[in-house]
Amino acid sequence: MKKLPDISLVNGKLESSVPVTDRGLHYGDGLFETILCLDQQLILRAPHLARLWRDAVRLKITIDITALEKELAQLQAMMAALGKDAGVVKIIVTRESSGRGYSTGGCGGSNRLLQFTSGIQYPKANRDGIRMALSDLKLAQQPALAGIKHLNRLEQVLAHSAIPKPFYQEALLCDSQQRVIEGTISNVFLVKDGKLVTPGLDQAGVRGVMRDHIMDAIAPPLKIMTSEARVTLADVLAADEVFVCNSVFGVWPVQALHVREYAIGTVTRRVQHAVDALGFPSVHA
Amino acid sequence: MKKLPDISLVNGKLESSVPVTDRGLHYGDGLFETILCLDQQLILRAPHLARLWRDAVRLKITIDITALEKELAQLQAMMAALGKDAGVVKIIVTRESSGRGYSTGGCGGSNRLLQFTSGIQYPKANRDGIRMALSDLKLAQQPALAGIKHLNRLEQVLAHSAIPKPFYQEALLCDSQQRVIEGTISNVFLVKDGKLVTPGLDQAGVRGVMRDHIMDAIAPPLKIMTSEARVTLADVLAADEVFVCNSVFGVWPVQALHVREYAIGTVTRRVQHAVDALGFPSVHA
Repeated sequence: MKKLPDISLVNGKLESSVPVTDRGLHYGDGLFETILCLDQQLILRAPHLARLWRDAVRLKITIDITALEKELAQLQAMMAALGKDAGVVKIIVTRESSGRGYSTGGCGGSNRLLQFTSGIQYPKANRDGIRMALSDLKLAQQPALAGIKHLNRLEQVLAHSAIPKPFYQEALLCDSQQRVIEGTISNVFLVKDGKLVTPGLDQAGVRGVMRDHIMDAIAPPLKIMTSEARVTLADVLAADEVFVCNSVFGVWPVQALHVREYAIGTVTRRVQHAVDALGFPSVHA
Repeated sequence: MKKLPDISLVNGKLESSVPVTDRGLHYGDGLFETILCLDQQLILRAPHLARLWRDAVRLKITIDITALEKELAQLQAMMAALGKDAGVVKIIVTRESSGRGYSTGGCGGSNRLLQFTSGIQYPKANRDGIRMALSDLKLAQQPALAGIKHLNRLEQVLAHSAIPKPFYQEALLCDSQQRVIEGTISNVFLVKDGKLVTPGLDQAGVRGVMRDHIMDAIAPPLKIMTSEARVTLADVLAADEVFVCNSVFGVWPVQALHVREYAIGTVTRRVQHAVDALGFPSVHA
């Protein structure tokens, strides 16, 4: 069953389509953000826009941030008018249209697609632990694109589609050097000796807003030490606790990775509880 | 200056846009072909459709090939009606639209976008040799996607945009293991001791229709031996001749790669001449 977006705005206009020449379609030449919306407020709005901005600089895509902010406000007003409180706002920014070929010559701006989809509900049980499969697909290493939430997502499509559901809810992705990188829709944290460790993302993976939020804003006041490191599968199997996170569902403890089982530990619960203040329990039912 | 397509057909209808939910836009979840059209005929039509089909099987995208063939005929009829003889036909096939998220559940079909762009003209001088830069970007190794002409093309966008034009016309891409793979818009062949060698594409790169055509149909009747191999930069520098190819421009000899200069040799000229029978001289001016 396909849940289609309730509202779509293309460069500020209510549209259900984008130009056939758009470079997002032709080359995946663009970026995206998925932002949780509760009580018509965008959760972690500032870090999402900051990440979009940072990634756009790396790909040399020019974003009219004033127009984007205006359109986000427009979208929120429409949600209010439709009586929609909660859902997910997706922002896609592409390097607009171009003539035939890869050349970015003449692409001085970008196209903005904003979508609101209501009725996001994850299984409540996920909050008390998910099972993670080990993905057969190994992420490619590409430092020029690592960390960026760009539109070239075939690896995630293949890996996500291969998860043996419903027994497993997520899959862990390693790179071709057998380093642990992330989940298909989440970043991953290990707890070892009371400290948080998350994989570095300089070779592969998406640098998630929730990942950075936990590192920068959640762990420090809880006096939990954090570090970014090269993480091997052996490290994950030797960890005391494991959890995954993203900015739409918050924190899900990992109760099993392949054949290894984990107790849901106190550090995971403390982080989950602190993150929950943003409202994540309400997107689970 | 942007040259926009003369005709666009979306699933057989004259349209200038695609749905905002299309997975080609959201994830680059799709494939494409660019086919030279001369005298309203699609050059190497069968191998292009065969490649599309082969890649679709690898990505598990279902293509309605009957509808696609009908739409290609429709496009050619429209070209005739508009008096357009020559140009490029681009086929994009995406894993249609889906709800939020990577899951391909419910995506049983695909969307077909056909575009015709007239007036393709490459510099005539390229037929007597181009200069190739060495790209700083190293292609990522991803066996699950290697060889496929999919829509995740950010590496090509970045590499192509970094070519120092007009002095260089193309750039040579290696992978992170320093193996030579391809050009940004072309495949590459070396000539060594009268034999053709082209890089294997099991880790990275696009398996071009012209590359396979030269291997399978051009070289054998010319009694030129061919092989696919692991090719290093040292191999390229030690080659007697180098050329690049694709199915839109045919064969361009390489007269210089970075600081190494090559004579345009007889093997390159024989292959170029044989390939030219398909009509490539006419797309140069």
